[in-house]
Amino acid sequence: MSGNWFGHNFRFATWGESHGPAIGAIVDGVPPGIPLAEADIQSWLDKRRPGTSKYVTQRQEPDVVRIMSGVFEGKTTGTPIALIIDNVDQRSKDYGDIKDAFRPGHADYTYWKKYGIRDYRGGGRASARETAMRVAAGAVARKILERDFGPKFQVRGAMTKIGPLRINPEKWDWASLDGNPFWCPDATVIGLWSKFLDSVRREGSSAGAVVEIHASGVPAGLGAPIYSKLDADLASAIMGINAVKAVEIGDGFNITAIPGEDAHDEMRMKTVEGQNERAVEFLSNHAGGILGGLSTGQDIVVRFAVKPTSSILAPRRTVNIQGEDTTVATKGRHDPCVGIRAVPVGEAMVACVLADHWLRHKAQCG
Amino acid sequence: MSGNWFGHNFRFATWGESHGPAIGAIVDGVPPGIPLAEADIQSWLDKRRPGTSKYVTQRQEPDVVRIMSGVFEGKTTGTPIALIIDNVDQRSKDYGDIKDAFRPGHADYTYWKKYGIRDYRGGGRASARETAMRVAAGAVARKILERDFGPKFQVRGAMTKIGPLRINPEKWDWASLDGNPFWCPDATVIGLWSKFLDSVRREGSSAGAVVEIHASGVPAGLGAPIYSKLDADLASAIMGINAVKAVEIGDGFNITAIPGEDAHDEMRMKTVEGQNERAVEFLSNHAGGILGGLSTGQDIVVRFAVKPTSSILAPRRTVNIQGEDTTVATKGRHDPCVGIRAVPVGEAMVACVLADHWLRHKAQCG
Amino acid sequence: MSGNWFGHNFRFATWGESHGPAIGAIVDGVPPGIPLAEADIQSWLDKRRPGTSKYVTQRQEPDVVRIMSGVFEGKTTGTPIALIIDNVDQRSKDYGDIKDAFRPGHADYTYWKKYGIRDYRGGGRASARETAMRVAAGAVARKILERDFGPKFQVRGAMTKIGPLRINPEKWDWASLDGNPFWCPDATVIGLWSKFLDSVRREGSSAGAVVEIHASGVPAGLGAPIYSKLDADLASAIMGINAVKAVEIGDGFNITAIPGEDAHDEMRMKTVEGQNERAVEFLSNHAGGILGGLSTGQDIVVRFAVKPTSSILAPRRTVNIQGEDTTVATKGRHDPCVGIRAVPVGEAMVACVLADHWLRHKAQCG
Amino acid sequence: MSGNWFGHNFRFATWGESHGPAIGAIVDGVPPGIPLAEADIQSWLDKRRPGTSKYVTQRQEPDVVRIMSGVFEGKTTGTPIALIIDNVDQRSKDYGDIKDAFRPGHADYTYWKKYGIRDYRGGGRASARETAMRVAAGAVARKILERDFGPKFQVRGAMTKIGPLRINPEKWDWASLDGNPFWCPDATVIGLWSKFLDSVRREGSSAGAVVEIHASGVPAGLGAPIYSKLDADLASAIMGINAVKAVEIGDGFNITAIPGEDAHDEMRMKTVEGQNERAVEFLSNHAGGILGGLSTGQDIVVRFAVKPTSSILAPRRTVNIQGEDTTVATKGRHDPCVGIRAVPVGEAMVACVLADHWLRHKAQCG
Repeated sequence: MSGNWFGHNFRFATWGESHGPAIGAIVDGVPPGIPLAEADIQSWLDKRRPGTSKYVTQRQEPDVVRIMSGVFEGKTTGTPIALIIDNVDQRSKDYGDIKDAFRPGHADYTYWKKYGIRDYRGGGRASARETAMRVAAGAVARKILERDFGPKFQVRGAMTKIGPLRINPEKWDWASLDGNPFWCPDATVIGLWSKFLDSVRREGSSAGAVVEIHASGVPAGLGAPIYSKLDADLASAIMGINAVKAVEIGDGFNITAIPGEDAHDEMRMKTVEGQNERAVEFLSNHAGGILGGLSTGQDIVVRFAVKPTSSILAPRRTVNIQGEDTTVATKGRHDPCVGIRAVPVGEAMVACVLADHWLRHKAQCG
Repeated sequence: MSGNWFGHNFRFATWGESHGPAIGAIVDGVPPGIPLAEADIQSWLDKRRPGTSKYVTQRQEPDVVRIMSGVFEGKTTGTPIALIIDNVDQRSKDYGDIKDAFRPGHADYTYWKKYGIRDYRGGGRASARETAMRVAAGAVARKILERDFGPKFQVRGAMTKIGPLRINPEKWDWASLDGNPFWCPDATVIGLWSKFLDSVRREGSSAGAVVEIHASGVPAGLGAPIYSKLDADLASAIMGINAVKAVEIGDGFNITAIPGEDAHDEMRMKTVEGQNERAVEFLSNHAGGILGGLSTGQDIVVRFAVKPTSSILAPRRTVNIQGEDTTVATKGRHDPCVGIRAVPVGEAMVACVLADHWLRHKAQCG
Repeated sequence: MSGNWFGHNFRFATWGESHGPAIGAIVDGVPPGIPLAEADIQSWLDKRRPGTSKYVTQRQEPDVVRIMSGVFEGKTTGTPIALIIDNVDQRSKDYGDIKDAFRPGHADYTYWKKYGIRDYRGGGRASARETAMRVAAGAVARKILERDFGPKFQVRGAMTKIGPLRINPEKWDWASLDGNPFWCPDATVIGLWSKFLDSVRREGSSAGAVVEIHASGVPAGLGAPIYSKLDADLASAIMGINAVKAVEIGDGFNITAIPGEDAHDEMRMKTVEGQNERAVEFLSNHAGGILGGLSTGQDIVVRFAVKPTSSILAPRRTVNIQGEDTTVATKGRHDPCVGIRAVPVGEAMVACVLADHWLRHKAQCG
Repeated sequence: MSGNWFGHNFRFATWGESHGPAIGAIVDGVPPGIPLAEADIQSWLDKRRPGTSKYVTQRQEPDVVRIMSGVFEGKTTGTPIALIIDNVDQRSKDYGDIKDAFRPGHADYTYWKKYGIRDYRGGGRASARETAMRVAAGAVARKILERDFGPKFQVRGAMTKIGPLRINPEKWDWASLDGNPFWCPDATVIGLWSKFLDSVRREGSSAGAVVEIHASGVPAGLGAPIYSKLDADLASAIMGINAVKAVEIGDGFNITAIPGEDAHDEMRMKTVEGQNERAVEFLSNHAGGILGGLSTGQDIVVRFAVKPTSSILAPRRTVNIQGEDTTVATKGRHDPCVGIRAVPVGEAMVACVLADHWLRHKAQCG
């Protein structure tokens, strides 16, 4: 089948192009009786909205979401929840110059090869605009998980690297996220990052990024071996975000250099605070909260790489649909670092994977 | 649903535990009329078989595959192909000591949390033994793709790092793979790697690895946006292999440090040798053969990290099913570097993803 | 998963309640390059529209469809096609009297048992209004099939029985359909049917119906054994239409009384008119165009029973959500014979099943 | 995808041909901890086994099932349950005469058109032998439902018509089933049926049948609107059984002649025996236990038509794979009335649909 839907028991499908009248989604399988209002979704959409700082695209999209179905008197009914966001600022004339030429690193070449269609108005379906609907679906997923997992449940993301500049992981402080447009958890590098991205933007270049998502308060045992392991589904959900080229769980590539006796998280029983029982405690979290494709109960840690925006001002060599050599430069309003807006999208996708596996778990083991 | 099946139009499901009588698979959706014999599958199984060198588990499993259905007079009939491999060397007594204790880094803890079942005989369903069936399904996938993509189609894997030791990518020579038990493409490091792994093995430790898979001769346009992008499905298929903790496409994490004007693969028209036509040529392959979730026609490059084997001789702190602190050491016959046998498994999974997307592509665009 | 989507390679999902702002659908997997305009869909919607005669609900819904995505310059692009129809005439006050009481034969009781939600405004998601989106999806399916199967392809439906009154099958003339509001293929019974339904309507009662769909010009070999046989998928698609209680293929129940030697369609080679080749000709069509779950190339014949509308004026015994005995009578504007509007819906579902199986067939055997 | 799998959360896939070495199934998604032994499955298989009376095929197949995986110490583990039955009595030479000719009413023509393969050894994948695996999967489904629905849960089938001979529904007595080879619930017609079928068998003819399945003790609310309604999934599951041509729920086609005020099941509150609470009671069951695609809590009643066996002794006109006119007569050992063995198969499919919807219901509403 064509791939515009996500998930099994928590399932959504999205539609819409960046230059059409609107984008939308259907979210299906949501348990009935969950309080849901447009504001619950809007607050997450506002995190990824264009035009919020000079470091993201200046396209002006208010991204106001409307719930069209599936909610009655403030609660989900169990029927499909349709969501729509009107496209306000299409301004397709910006794309006139690239009507025929393929942008290096962009999907327009491969879409043309697959479908034989050249929608010259812009990114079309391949545009990162589609990710607004992922964020919206993620907001619904969070409502399910917050109800069922309780107040300890949380999905949070941060940017840990921009271009060549990393954070210092020891300086990680979630509270730092609020004061900067980069979702940067290390307050000491924000100034440097700002200067760097100012320079990238001025030069009409773009920068890549690394994003890290943490999910806390997830019970042990989520995931469906063998071909829907929790980490496999997370990898798919994250790699499918526009411009992502790599995904790690826990230590990721770094674990390969650690000897076996140090690489695995040892366990001890500990007394649970304020309770009369003891629980398993892991002494480290190399595994990123997943073993054998199932959650361990520790924080789930997912890290991913976002490539530099492919639509840039600098002219590059390419070909056009007539099969001629040419050059292309993109004059539109684009993100100098698309990784910034990938943070709320990554969070949303993690929430969606967890919601799907939670419902699947209830089906088999509930 | 429970997750024991893979794919949509090319679909397989596997069954079996490491200590049961057999393991098996059903491969469904295979086009009719494709020549297929047990030998076509066996040759790939022999690549991942236990006991082939001192660097892999000494469990003695001939891994002889039988085709039980779906083939008539040497050709596929279009009906499901059932494959079975008998388990010969179960020897479950090796596991007696770990009957109650959870191995750090192993799935036995999470399976117990999910299912409430403790199959103390060994890895059970979580055992890497299941990957034999992935290799078998991959062999069927290759037959489809070889017929339809022609002789240029190839899926090959190599190990590029073991523990802390990398290859020199400039020394890459596919011909080197035949002369060593590591699938190492850089002949100059094989001696060093042997010494390293000998030492790891002697000490009862284990080592991680990085594996890289290249698929050549794949036409442009495979993949199904938005939620079944080719790279998303590859990420899922690879991350779902036992012990894998990270997946990259093309430059992966490294692309984040490259400025936008250099990170994207430029294009030129070139004259195709021996033909009267011109074709698009990419001047680099940072993208690893995938843009917008669709194949570009270039080599598809997938890289993944395999953690050190969790079953090791060194004693480690853990808990048991009675909720007591204890230590555990695994005396069974295990791979000191499970990454070695992950090479043919990674190849197989890439082939399966491509076969599925090829059939899906035919459905919509064929 | 929740069940708001249909199909595999040709897939659609619908959303919306009868008393919400709109209803909609996403149609996914449509091949690119197929000419598609709103008028192509509107013409079929007009067939099932409310208010077209006194024999259907007087609710005034223009049912104007808008294509929101997936079409560019008059052709499908291969991306999801979103369709929306605004609800114009909700008038939910009509339902005040039945706010708490369950209508016998209606889904409101079972929805309440499943979801614990009482959407007292009317049928909500269970309303036959949802079938407008089936007709819209069916219109897209027809476009695919018309392109690929050619001008001989046709899906047509007729009503063959209303209440206790049958047509005479020997008088069947497709041309009769145009002159009556019943899709009745036997012109000799139209007068009788009109009188009967006038009387039913006056008395505040309702009547059941039998509908028959014929699909011509379908090539042999469509269907996917064993669990997605063409007749199994047709049975599901048809039984899932509101108020349907029975489905037959070909002779259906009647075949049970025919001796084996007469029940099966014999074959002969015949010369194809105007061509230099010979083809298989069946000498009868007891099988309704399907053998072993695969199309034979003959006309596919599907027949189904539609129960009388459950919302009627006559008071009936029931209970309410407070668990008290009560009576209920429905004063809203309802179809005296919902079977009439089921004709275009049945046609659409048959077209959707065929489109899905055609794409699935191309994937495996194309 | 190819269609050899059934269900979503309770999912199984089958494999095997009538003349291969074995047939088998994978049953996935089964909750862990359910007691399951081979005997639990064997008892149901024995009900549909060949050779049990002169009225079913004389093929001698002991049909001994082996559980290959997914069960440990007598309980399900949550991993896939593989089942295998060896084919003992292939005797493919019986089919020599029909090597090239297509049997009227049989799938061999359509398989040849779809796959281009002629497996002349017999029914191959289209053989009713595959239904043994449905019965086996159904046995697993029953174990789930018996645990979760309690002792009132029951799925029972009976044959209500053979050829032209019906039972008297007023004489229905489930106890009658044990004393006859027809699963006939009306003891007064058994003698007549025996004579009729003796005559059919002697003449080398065959007879159709009507089968009725009742599921009791099913809670209200199962089913997944809109495209996986309980009745839609039942229709698919039943229509997909070999030789089935029609499916009804409750009154089925007969409901079309009943006026609206009588056709729908009224409700009253009644005091539950021995309990201090009151429950909804339906005053009739025209609906067959399903409204709006969801179970009502009443008995689910499914009725289906089985056509006469297509493999008969009487010679009939047909064509062969060379495109020549010929005649064909089948000398093999076939069922004179395949409807008899369809009873346990129908029961099994109903159980599988219920198990799938029960797990799906738990996922969303549990």
